[in-house]
Amino acid sequence: MLVHLSRNLLSKSIQHVFKALSNNSTGVLSGLYIYAGSKEVVFSGSNASLTVQHRACITDNNKIHIVKQGSIVCPAKYLYEIIRKLNDGNVVLEVNEQLILSITSGNTRVCLSGMSPIDHPFIPTTYHQYTGKSIDVSSSLLKSLIKQVAGAVSTSEAKPILTGVSLEVQGNQLTMIATDGVIRMASRSIYIENERGFFGSAVIPGVNLMEIVKLLDDEGDGMVTIQLSHHEIRFITQNHIIESVLIEGLYPSTRNLVPTTYVSEIILNVKSFRQVIDRVFVLADHHLITIHVSEKGLELISSTSEIGDVRDELLLEDKNGENFSISINGKYLISTLRCIESDNIRIRYAGTKSPLVLLPASDNSTWLFLLTPVMTKDKR
Amino acid sequence: MLVHLSRNLLSKSIQHVFKALSNNSTGVLSGLYIYAGSKEVVFSGSNASLTVQHRACITDNNKIHIVKQGSIVCPAKYLYEIIRKLNDGNVVLEVNEQLILSITSGNTRVCLSGMSPIDHPFIPTTYHQYTGKSIDVSSSLLKSLIKQVAGAVSTSEAKPILTGVSLEVQGNQLTMIATDGVIRMASRSIYIENERGFFGSAVIPGVNLMEIVKLLDDEGDGMVTIQLSHHEIRFITQNHIIESVLIEGLYPSTRNLVPTTYVSEIILNVKSFRQVIDRVFVLADHHLITIHVSEKGLELISSTSEIGDVRDELLLEDKNGENFSISINGKYLISTLRCIESDNIRIRYAGTKSPLVLLPASDNSTWLFLLTPVMTKDKR
Repeated sequence: MLVHLSRNLLSKSIQHVFKALSNNSTGVLSGLYIYAGSKEVVFSGSNASLTVQHRACITDNNKIHIVKQGSIVCPAKYLYEIIRKLNDGNVVLEVNEQLILSITSGNTRVCLSGMSPIDHPFIPTTYHQYTGKSIDVSSSLLKSLIKQVAGAVSTSEAKPILTGVSLEVQGNQLTMIATDGVIRMASRSIYIENERGFFGSAVIPGVNLMEIVKLLDDEGDGMVTIQLSHHEIRFITQNHIIESVLIEGLYPSTRNLVPTTYVSEIILNVKSFRQVIDRVFVLADHHLITIHVSEKGLELISSTSEIGDVRDELLLEDKNGENFSISINGKYLISTLRCIESDNIRIRYAGTKSPLVLLPASDNSTWLFLLTPVMTKDKR
Repeated sequence: MLVHLSRNLLSKSIQHVFKALSNNSTGVLSGLYIYAGSKEVVFSGSNASLTVQHRACITDNNKIHIVKQGSIVCPAKYLYEIIRKLNDGNVVLEVNEQLILSITSGNTRVCLSGMSPIDHPFIPTTYHQYTGKSIDVSSSLLKSLIKQVAGAVSTSEAKPILTGVSLEVQGNQLTMIATDGVIRMASRSIYIENERGFFGSAVIPGVNLMEIVKLLDDEGDGMVTIQLSHHEIRFITQNHIIESVLIEGLYPSTRNLVPTTYVSEIILNVKSFRQVIDRVFVLADHHLITIHVSEKGLELISSTSEIGDVRDELLLEDKNGENFSISINGKYLISTLRCIESDNIRIRYAGTKSPLVLLPASDNSTWLFLLTPVMTKDKR
């Protein structure tokens, strides 16, 4: 391999894929893969569960001169740090027969011991022109969808399937569902304009989806092609391919979890509710916040023994039905409220033993969040 | 105590002193002290070694209404978080006879269990008008002085005196010296325009001085009055008093450490030197960087076994004397170069067993840094 390219392009390309690497990886997965083809240089990093691949194509903006094709895997952390600290200008990457990558830039000459890339996962770059069974979603909509749902996955490995997010495509509708099986459930459906024969379902590790949100942030707006195989799901953009493994097994049905009736419904301003909850949470021992709903509004109370307590109030935008009191886990409520994009939220109460249902106040949205109340002593 | 004041003023005041508190403190030192006098509200935090006190005076800009004087110590972490999360507007602080601090702001009502402030260190606010034996130094000069010297203290508790910075005033000259007793020594003298009978010396904990730099950053530019007692040193600004304990004992003489002759002297551009050292440091196993000085310039080499090596070069601005090679601890050199304000640096070499002497290239500056070379196998 012998490639000339600019320090900026090299540095950005490495940054994109460096995030996918795990500190704990050993062997070929501890390295960053570089492949020089005829018209592009491809960078790839993987932690076995998530593989991120970035290609730098030869264009008018990207001055890349590929003298000799080839590939290598080299120590990611050192490569990343060295390239970051090079002065701006031209960089020459050369791999010799002993698998040594030499990096030359100005007066700087670096030699890094490489590894054979044979066992490193490599995703064919032809996927960038993928036209098979797939759906196209705008990057911003996909990020919003993931953020609103993936926070509700279980963090316990007791039921691995619940650490994943269920993705389902039926006709023009894409639905994501996540639940920890006990306290939280989140779901949202979006309308897909362009579906090319894609159908079926998959369970994607929640942690991978959260990484994908960060990786899509790097890419800017645009369309993302989602493509599903038996064992992987791929998110393909102009210059990125992100591939995640799937969690095997049947995702439990969540339809019966949603209460079909309710005894009270309130509408709240999201921003004000978030501020009040943030404040009350400071003194919420075990994250416990008690909420009283009456004609006067919403009263929130929390306390930590031997430290103190806090009470706060919030006006309701609207209320239908009975007054009620409920204790909830403030931490989960805060993380949910952070992902809400609408101005107002609708909360439905169906009794002390039923989960609260959180919905956007506007009827046409398809997002839904369930939060099971905490049973406190006075309610038993 | 009954005080009305704005959320912004309260929040800023608490932020100033919150930094002095230690997470490990118990009892009265785990709390934040609030004192309402006739014309000011004073906030104080302490970790026993460092006490930081901020006063908010009644002025046209600071709308404070002190209805009833008094004081309390209350749980710092909770107070800080709650005040930070209050909406802007008026806040009422009230302490009742049971030592409960109630905080009221809009619809928010917080009760925090307080402690009696009897054992909390309190520095009389009359020090703000201190006119006794003291020196005045501009805040920016003092910060620069501390940054350039305090990094050289020892981090080992084996010799406690070396974890401190020696401060000495003789006539119109203030000198700070720090050394780890083995590898590094830093010293700098500054000229004091206004000394009011201050003389003598003290050893101040290096960690406290580094905190003081951060605290002075909050205050903006201005003059700092330094005042020395038998057991404490005080740094006094318009609204801050920062008090540090002193380390007891005699600071060792460092005068004999500085080589009086040298066999070679080079002058380097600080910015370029810093960039090259940063780069070479990436592969510097045990922080070891080897430097070769010749007519061609400065060559720097480092390596990590089984990973790789890096070589870099830098032109010299000037050179007098012999060529030489030396191995140094790159970490110490990087932290030293970060604090240098002049464009060029002068480095003197007096043999493989003598420390390198780093000086500003301009002759009239009084900063000096010693860096003892690392003895590598080839030199034994």
